[in-house]
Parts: sequence; C-alpha cells; structure tokens
Amino acid sequence: MSESPIAIIACGGLLALECIEQMRAANPRTVVIALAGESRPEVVDRADHVLKWGQVGQLVKALERSGARRVLLIGSISQRPDFRAVAGDLETLKWLPRLVTTMSGGDDNVLRKVIGFFESSGYRIVSVAEAAPNLLAAEGTLTRKAPGAADRRDIDLGLAVLDAIAPFDVGQAVVVGAGRVAAVEAAEGTDPMIERIAEIRRQRRVAWKERAGILVKATKSQQDLRVDLPVIGPETVERCAAAGMAGIAVEAGRVVIAARAVCIERADEHGLFIHACRVAR
Amino acid sequence: MSESPIAIIACGGLLALECIEQMRAANPRTVVIALAGESRPEVVDRADHVLKWGQVGQLVKALERSGARRVLLIGSISQRPDFRAVAGDLETLKWLPRLVTTMSGGDDNVLRKVIGFFESSGYRIVSVAEAAPNLLAAEGTLTRKAPGAADRRDIDLGLAVLDAIAPFDVGQAVVVGAGRVAAVEAAEGTDPMIERIAEIRRQRRVAWKERAGILVKATKSQQDLRVDLPVIGPETVERCAAAGMAGIAVEAGRVVIAARAVCIERADEHGLFIHACRVAR
Repeated sequence: MSESPIAIIACGGLLALECIEQMRAANPRTVVIALAGESRPEVVDRADHVLKWGQVGQLVKALERSGARRVLLIGSISQRPDFRAVAGDLETLKWLPRLVTTMSGGDDNVLRKVIGFFESSGYRIVSVAEAAPNLLAAEGTLTRKAPGAADRRDIDLGLAVLDAIAPFDVGQAVVVGAGRVAAVEAAEGTDPMIERIAEIRRQRRVAWKERAGILVKATKSQQDLRVDLPVIGPETVERCAAAGMAGIAVEAGRVVIAARAVCIERADEHGLFIHACRVAR
Repeated sequence: MSESPIAIIACGGLLALECIEQMRAANPRTVVIALAGESRPEVVDRADHVLKWGQVGQLVKALERSGARRVLLIGSISQRPDFRAVAGDLETLKWLPRLVTTMSGGDDNVLRKVIGFFESSGYRIVSVAEAAPNLLAAEGTLTRKAPGAADRRDIDLGLAVLDAIAPFDVGQAVVVGAGRVAAVEAAEGTDPMIERIAEIRRQRRVAWKERAGILVKATKSQQDLRVDLPVIGPETVERCAAAGMAGIAVEAGRVVIAARAVCIERADEHGLFIHACRVAR
C-alpha cells in the first residue's frame, strides 16, 4: 500500500512542475492545487483544483476531500496579495484579519503565519527535501568549469556575509568577486540584484576583468526550510551570464536547482560554474 | 600667527566647496587642489592648482610649495581611474604599479593605500572633523518632523545590520521600514539603493503605507574616517522623498550633512525627518 498522499500547493515557476512530476511518480495519489494567476499553465493543466487568491474555504474543502495530511507549499508568489482584489469566500472573511497582519514584517514572519494556519487545521507542512529530495543540490561541482582558489575565497566571504545578516531576515544571496562584496539581496529579490551587477561593472565600481563575480546563495539560518528553500534555475544562470559573472555557489543540501539539466547545459555554454558547498551550521 | 595650512584635495560634490569655504574662513592660507573632470566648476574656480588624473608628480610639487603638512581628501570620485587614459607624468609612471594594486579589494583597502602614499611622503591626512568640524551632524533631530517610536525601532534594526556587515567592507547604508530591511548598500552606492525602493514598493515587496522607509547611514566600524566619512546632502533628501520614504537617520558625529540648511528646508517641505543618533562603538 502506498504512503498517504502529499498535497502540493503549486504557485509560480517551473519548480512546481518538477515537484509534481517527481511526487506523482513516487505516489500517483499526490493532490495538486494550482493558484490562478500565479501557477504556470502546465501546472494548471495537471491540477486537481485551481483556486483563486483568498479562496481559503475552497482550499480547506479540497484538502479535506483529498485525504492528504501533509502539504508542500512550492513556487513563487509574484506579489503580496492585494486583499481588496481577492476572490474571497466566507472562510476568507473569517481569516482575513489574521492574514492581513501577516503582511508586515519580514518574509519569514509571513511564512510562519501561513504555516500556523495549516498546522492549526491539522496538516503538516513538508519541505521539498521530504517531498522531492532529488531536486536539492548535492555537494560538488555540477559544471565542466569548477571554482578556483580565489573563487573559493570569494564564496567563503559571501557565505560569511550571509551568515552575519541571517538574524535580520534580510535576504539569502550576495554577489562577490575579487575579494569584494558587490551586491547584497534584500527585499528586491535575487534577480534584480544580479541585474545591477552589469551597471556596477559599467560604472567601474568594482575592478573585475572578464567573467567575474559569483552569486552566492544559502539559507538564512533562521529560515523555515519547509516553505522557503532558496532556488536557482535556468533563468538565474542566464542572468548571471548576461551580467558577465563567473559562477554560482549554493549551499549543498539546502538549495534547490530547478531544471538541473538545463542549468548545467546553459552554464557550460557560457563557461560558468555551478558549485554546491557544505556550510557548517 | 595662524596655524600651518591644510591642503584640500577637492574632488566631486558640493561638500568640497563647503569645506573650502569653512577652511579658508579659518585660515586664508588653505591650499586648494582640484581634480579636473571630478571637481565642480565652483571648486575649480577657487583652486590654487587644477590637476588631472595621474599627475602625481605635479601633486607632489604643489604640496611641497604650499608648506602644508596636513592634507584633507574630500569629495567623490565618480569612477575608478582608467589607467590607460590618465594624463600621466614621470612620477605617475613610478607610482603606477603600486596604484594599480589598490584597485582590487574593497574601498577601505584602496583608501588605506592612498593614505599610505601621502604618509610615506611625510603628510598627515586629516578628517573633516579636524578641518571643518561644523559639517558633522550633532545628536538630535534637525527637521520639524521627528522619528516616532516605530521609526526608532527601525533605525535600531538598520544600525544593527550595518554593524553586522561592518567587518566585510560592504557598504554604509540600508533602508528599513515597518520592521523590514528593504535594501542594503554594497558596491552600487547609496543613491541607486534609494532609487530601487520605489520599484520594491511598486512590486509590493514591502507592505508600507504612505511615507515609509528610513535611510540609515553610519560609518563602517573599520572605516578610516579621515578619508571616507559618510555624507548626505540635498540630493539624498530629494531621492528619499521621491522614493516615498519617511526620513533619514545618520550616526551623530560621524556623518557629514552637506548644505545643511538646504537639506533641512527640502526635508521639511516633503515632511521627512533627518535625525542624528548616537551609536555605541
């Protein structure tokens, strides 16, 4: 007899699709819930239920009927929900005051409250590591190119900065090169941070030659890995390549590589490395 | 008899002009050296010598003739110098290899080497605090509007983040609002960091209402205050106002407020506060 199914609430991005495929291969009873306006069409096509922002009552009903007791929350939310525009139902009205309070404070705070909502309803939130373990980066270099000694020093510097800001729920990525921290991610997210590297170089604010600058991405030490695992994907690789960067370093076992084969292919084409390193915690 | 004069090497920005005026009022023998392409026209007009990038020999000669033994380095350098394009002289060729090595590593590293150059030639580098002490922000609120209790918590959070990243020579400013660190300055500098706040808000990556977000600016703990004192000025105030921000908090006694009267006037017009707070070191 197969294990009890996991329900996946699949929001934006390719990763949700990969999770669905891995999870359904492992257990065909996996329940897929998509979010209209956030989930990709391929995810919506595979969904058992497609809900709109704020249809909390529908969500509760769908979960109850599915028999799932474990829930994976996956994928990006492009915007914080605008509560004046959601397709609310009665259950939403009941939850609204509590949800609205989640919209101030850091991301971690929001996610803790979302988890609290599911847990108080009797569900256990699981991580990608439990639901689709093959998606996590294992220690080592994935690409033909590997980081050199200077790159490894830059990666260590980047990890040290991430560790220093971890208590403040700032961000989970930095760009480092030639001993210099060029960019620190905060509310803008990883992609805009990578994009400003090109401008920083054009203004000669860093003295980098040829391909230089490493995206270093790791978990915040206080981050809840069940709902907020850092992810890189082919778009991350393309953005780093376009910014003239040299590679990507992620924390082994705690960062997801979406569409791994495509990531490696693109990185090899551009001559970038992708490296996963063990971080002492 | 007046004190021995200070030579001011006046680069970009309004602050150099203010320093010249305060220093000449205190000692008419103050020697003003402008940098072509960096100094403002008003500074060039008041200069005893106007040098180009890399005219190190001319600089040494000008300093020797002036009788100054103290040097104030002030103002911004818009770009790291391109050594293929400098108007070099013989002395520059001698220094070039040493100067080129200063162009990797953090700003602090560059500045340490520039200081080393002057000190090894027998000059003492002085800070704005010594040369023009009235330009530093004293503890307290300068504007009609003052930070409230929540603002003070945000300021404390910003100062804590700056303190955490200080060992890594990252940057000297952050933007914080409603308990959230929205932006951290690294190589891009303070102005682009402020400018991205508008985009962060439009994308609803922070849940701020009305005027919100405080620019918190302090010295890096390992920073050499003789050559790298943080500065705010009227353009900083205008940028913060344009980004919908609520105020500016600076470290008292260690941040320069350029064109103070104009800063206060603009901040009052927009309803922003400017507050200088004591930081324990």
